[in-house]
Amino acid sequence: MGMHQYIKSLSDLENIFRCPGKFKYEEHSVAAHSFKVSQIAQFLGTVEEQAGFEVDWRALYEKALNHDYTELFIGDIKTPVKYATPELRGLLADVEDSMTENFITKEIPKEFQAAYFERLKEGKDDTLEGQILSVSDKIDLLYESFGEIQKGNPERVFTEIYEESLTTILKFKHLTCADYFLKEVLPDLLSSSFINQDQLQKITQRIISDSITN
Amino acid sequence: MGMHQYIKSLSDLENIFRCPGKFKYEEHSVAAHSFKVSQIAQFLGTVEEQAGFEVDWRALYEKALNHDYTELFIGDIKTPVKYATPELRGLLADVEDSMTENFITKEIPKEFQAAYFERLKEGKDDTLEGQILSVSDKIDLLYESFGEIQKGNPERVFTEIYEESLTTILKFKHLTCADYFLKEVLPDLLSSSFINQDQLQKITQRIISDSITN
Amino acid sequence: MGMHQYIKSLSDLENIFRCPGKFKYEEHSVAAHSFKVSQIAQFLGTVEEQAGFEVDWRALYEKALNHDYTELFIGDIKTPVKYATPELRGLLADVEDSMTENFITKEIPKEFQAAYFERLKEGKDDTLEGQILSVSDKIDLLYESFGEIQKGNPERVFTEIYEESLTTILKFKHLTCADYFLKEVLPDLLSSSFINQDQLQKITQRIISDSITN
Amino acid sequence: MGMHQYIKSLSDLENIFRCPGKFKYEEHSVAAHSFKVSQIAQFLGTVEEQAGFEVDWRALYEKALNHDYTELFIGDIKTPVKYATPELRGLLADVEDSMTENFITKEIPKEFQAAYFERLKEGKDDTLEGQILSVSDKIDLLYESFGEIQKGNPERVFTEIYEESLTTILKFKHLTCADYFLKEVLPDLLSSSFINQDQLQKITQRIISDSITN
Amino acid sequence: MGMHQYIKSLSDLENIFRCPGKFKYEEHSVAAHSFKVSQIAQFLGTVEEQAGFEVDWRALYEKALNHDYTELFIGDIKTPVKYATPELRGLLADVEDSMTENFITKEIPKEFQAAYFERLKEGKDDTLEGQILSVSDKIDLLYESFGEIQKGNPERVFTEIYEESLTTILKFKHLTCADYFLKEVLPDLLSSSFINQDQLQKITQRIISDSITN
Amino acid sequence: MGMHQYIKSLSDLENIFRCPGKFKYEEHSVAAHSFKVSQIAQFLGTVEEQAGFEVDWRALYEKALNHDYTELFIGDIKTPVKYATPELRGLLADVEDSMTENFITKEIPKEFQAAYFERLKEGKDDTLEGQILSVSDKIDLLYESFGEIQKGNPERVFTEIYEESLTTILKFKHLTCADYFLKEVLPDLLSSSFINQDQLQKITQRIISDSITN
Repeated sequence: MGMHQYIKSLSDLENIFRCPGKFKYEEHSVAAHSFKVSQIAQFLGTVEEQAGFEVDWRALYEKALNHDYTELFIGDIKTPVKYATPELRGLLADVEDSMTENFITKEIPKEFQAAYFERLKEGKDDTLEGQILSVSDKIDLLYESFGEIQKGNPERVFTEIYEESLTTILKFKHLTCADYFLKEVLPDLLSSSFINQDQLQKITQRIISDSITN
Repeated sequence: MGMHQYIKSLSDLENIFRCPGKFKYEEHSVAAHSFKVSQIAQFLGTVEEQAGFEVDWRALYEKALNHDYTELFIGDIKTPVKYATPELRGLLADVEDSMTENFITKEIPKEFQAAYFERLKEGKDDTLEGQILSVSDKIDLLYESFGEIQKGNPERVFTEIYEESLTTILKFKHLTCADYFLKEVLPDLLSSSFINQDQLQKITQRIISDSITN
Repeated sequence: MGMHQYIKSLSDLENIFRCPGKFKYEEHSVAAHSFKVSQIAQFLGTVEEQAGFEVDWRALYEKALNHDYTELFIGDIKTPVKYATPELRGLLADVEDSMTENFITKEIPKEFQAAYFERLKEGKDDTLEGQILSVSDKIDLLYESFGEIQKGNPERVFTEIYEESLTTILKFKHLTCADYFLKEVLPDLLSSSFINQDQLQKITQRIISDSITN
Repeated sequence: MGMHQYIKSLSDLENIFRCPGKFKYEEHSVAAHSFKVSQIAQFLGTVEEQAGFEVDWRALYEKALNHDYTELFIGDIKTPVKYATPELRGLLADVEDSMTENFITKEIPKEFQAAYFERLKEGKDDTLEGQILSVSDKIDLLYESFGEIQKGNPERVFTEIYEESLTTILKFKHLTCADYFLKEVLPDLLSSSFINQDQLQKITQRIISDSITN
Repeated sequence: MGMHQYIKSLSDLENIFRCPGKFKYEEHSVAAHSFKVSQIAQFLGTVEEQAGFEVDWRALYEKALNHDYTELFIGDIKTPVKYATPELRGLLADVEDSMTENFITKEIPKEFQAAYFERLKEGKDDTLEGQILSVSDKIDLLYESFGEIQKGNPERVFTEIYEESLTTILKFKHLTCADYFLKEVLPDLLSSSFINQDQLQKITQRIISDSITN
Repeated sequence: MGMHQYIKSLSDLENIFRCPGKFKYEEHSVAAHSFKVSQIAQFLGTVEEQAGFEVDWRALYEKALNHDYTELFIGDIKTPVKYATPELRGLLADVEDSMTENFITKEIPKEFQAAYFERLKEGKDDTLEGQILSVSDKIDLLYESFGEIQKGNPERVFTEIYEESLTTILKFKHLTCADYFLKEVLPDLLSSSFINQDQLQKITQRIISDSITN
């Protein structure tokens, strides 16, 4: 026991790819995704701070950096399976918890176990930092799907991912940082020229309008 | 509706890789694995037939060819998760069934639905063909892990996969074809020269001895 | 001697890629192609059976699964070379036969040699199953070329492969299953939206019209 | 101007690989490396905190996450070139500074420029957090080189990288966390069985002994 | 000492990729680029010879084949860094020279050192052969960028590379071979159909017009 | 017609890989191989010149650079097929000639056709330059196979390629440059430490001894 297994396992996250079999132009590892989400969270935190809100930076970085570590022992369960029934969702969460607990007890030295129990638990809670993580995770997913759409990938799944990401971000539009993203960043993304630009602009407007009327 | 989506989806199986993040020397797609399992089943069927047993070839090929198709909509759930509790295992099987049913009803034309219900159901039943599929699936997995061990991959996980595959094959040693594999094929595999030959030979003997005394 | 070499060689087919140097978006191994052709043949066989024709399923699966195995010892000879003169075609076929014979005699145990002589011979004969194999092989090639065209690959070779595949399928339009593919599946493929949709629809109509007037 | 370019550029870091042309078994992108260094820094910070030292967590995460971002506009200059003469080293640092400044002024909105000037400056200063970054950066490099050595890569360059990383870590052995790594983590790494284990253990002992006598 | 290290190092050039992180559709190794530049120089030399100019073929092939070998010990320094100031440019050239000298003295046997000093020095001088090398290098770069544009890569960087390559080629339009390329080859490239054809034709005409009026 | 197709086709050689399905650690494209053979020929030519022999450098570079270009329209025919019978060998050579002729007539402008007929014909003739090409081609193949053996690839095929390459080089030991390679370069290659060093040294000695007694 000791931290050797933990450090070594970080490299396994370089070899687990998101949405296996879907991305044709650029694949994204869990390690690289965690980096990008941490960078995006860093920016969104800055927006909040600038606007006068207090950010617990330690918590924010910790949540962003560790939020997908448990994929190592859980694997990639397709979303429709995960959310098929509340009962299954509950059982899967229980298994995830008990495997995480088991991993920490077995691989992390005693004196650091409390820290890692905190780090490896679900990060998307109701705190400001938990909400920023939720938004950051979806912004990266939105950019990943945009990367395929922009290069001409005709698979419908990427438009669906784009829509789903945007819809989730809109749920957090009460946050200054989500609002900033929607008003100041997204228009730049949509104004860069690419093949299906028209279509994506329309989809975006429809989703944003819908979110206002709801 | 029509078979276009089904034929197109075959190509997605070329891009889903087994044990993501583990294989360093050769990756194996679900499509290629299904091909290899069908080829191995074809050989094992021949052994059974030669020994005087009747093989339902149509059933055997059908089971082997289609046995991992549902990974498309289920994803790659890690084995320890899948088998964490009987309750979870049951719920996951239910979800798989209902997603398969949903897929067939939505994508397969009415006149062919009965055929695809048969093809996409769990193939590893107690018939001779179901058992041959179980053995074939593990022989391919054993060869996949051997491919890494032989090339010097020091990760313990491949020795574990080798052991687990061999142990499962031994559960079917009452079958002529499993017996043939153990007596006539495995020794050739172990006698080809490679770095950890000694160790693998010992592991193999231990597992085989254990299976006799049990 | 023993089946070890044969099982091991299946993995080599995972690493031989079709049309090397041409596919930019998705490469296709001989192993994966064999899987897809077997799946397509399985469907076409179902169409024939539904229409009242008798299908020898064992022969059909066997033909589809093994039809490209000999590429292992022959290599990938470009089609214009292969068919340059009847004399060369004949000589190459002789070499293929004698290498196959040599392989079987050397690697396959005596009691299984007859089975593998049958399996590794040319499968595209005049039987219903041989004809279904010819159609299945071309349907997969048509989908492979479509995969590139749809993603915007501007190389003319893929339009040529599409045309050649379609032309060959049309030669079998007396078969219920080829007819079904042309009437029920191909229109779905062409109606999915992609950049060069118009052009491909025109090419398709021209080839189909030509085949009627001939 | 806006943060769109910055977020988009994170994906470019997924496609820049470290030591191009050297790693044969596993390549490491700058994005994944930044993730791993942040994770290692997180652990080393925990060791320091446990030992009673105060850690500025915000600074630590910020340094680790951003420390290689400027590779985007500088490129990968080989170390012997970079350090060829003090004059060249100075000029290259000037260029890096002015390109960073230029990037921030051009791409980052005014209200966030101060934050990004702080984030994109050289992080390896004399603060505790700066020193933890130096150690974390080398621990990841040591693991990257170990990954190749362990898998049998015979290129001497990886032993050299291992030696150089270890030597740098030893320069920080006055830190509790560097000491912890050397005493509690490194022995586990060296005791996992692999081909050149003996040789690497000797090299390690020699370097550690040398560092004591100096 | 002996030529073993030199021959072995050629393979390292197969693993160093040009513009790391940029090409999405096709990556280009330094080895393959050197081959293509040599082939293009071979053609341009033929054009010059045909037009009555004397070509020193040995010098031409030597320049083209070896022109990027020193990337092995220099690495890939981004162009804006390299040319940031004349002083830095000078210092970098000095380092490159001294590293080349060091390499030759250390790895090349005495009797061949003179030959390799000649081969590894900067080849783009004012001789006809040096100028042909400059043009060939840019023609390959122009084709590499065209390969991405043609396949729909929307990144502006490829249009910039295309423009920069063309501008450089135009600086050599006093050479028969550059003129031949502009009049006889480039129009064929631009007339092959692809998504952004119009735009690229306009850019080309603007650059060519500008070069005439200057 | 014009040289556009020829320049464009150079990029196809970057995507055709040698011995498809065999190399596990490093793949070699035809473009990169042509570069390496040209570099090796350049060195061997220098050895000959140093020893007082006259080298036609233009011919040597031309032969080396172009020697595998025709693989583009011929494909990769496995050696045992190619040499199965003298009759087949003759017919394949005829087809290659007529396809090359056809390509030149169709794609190369009239004024350059003579030059390309010369360049694309078989280069391995009895001239000094033709013999240097034969040796260079095999030295690169020997290094390619060594690269796999050294990294622990246990496939027998690489020892066979090593043996076959060495045997062919020995057939040219009357050349100063082949002799130089055997005496001054090969020992360095064999003395670098790697797993199967002993075995390869023995194989080498046996082959060299055999060549002396014959």
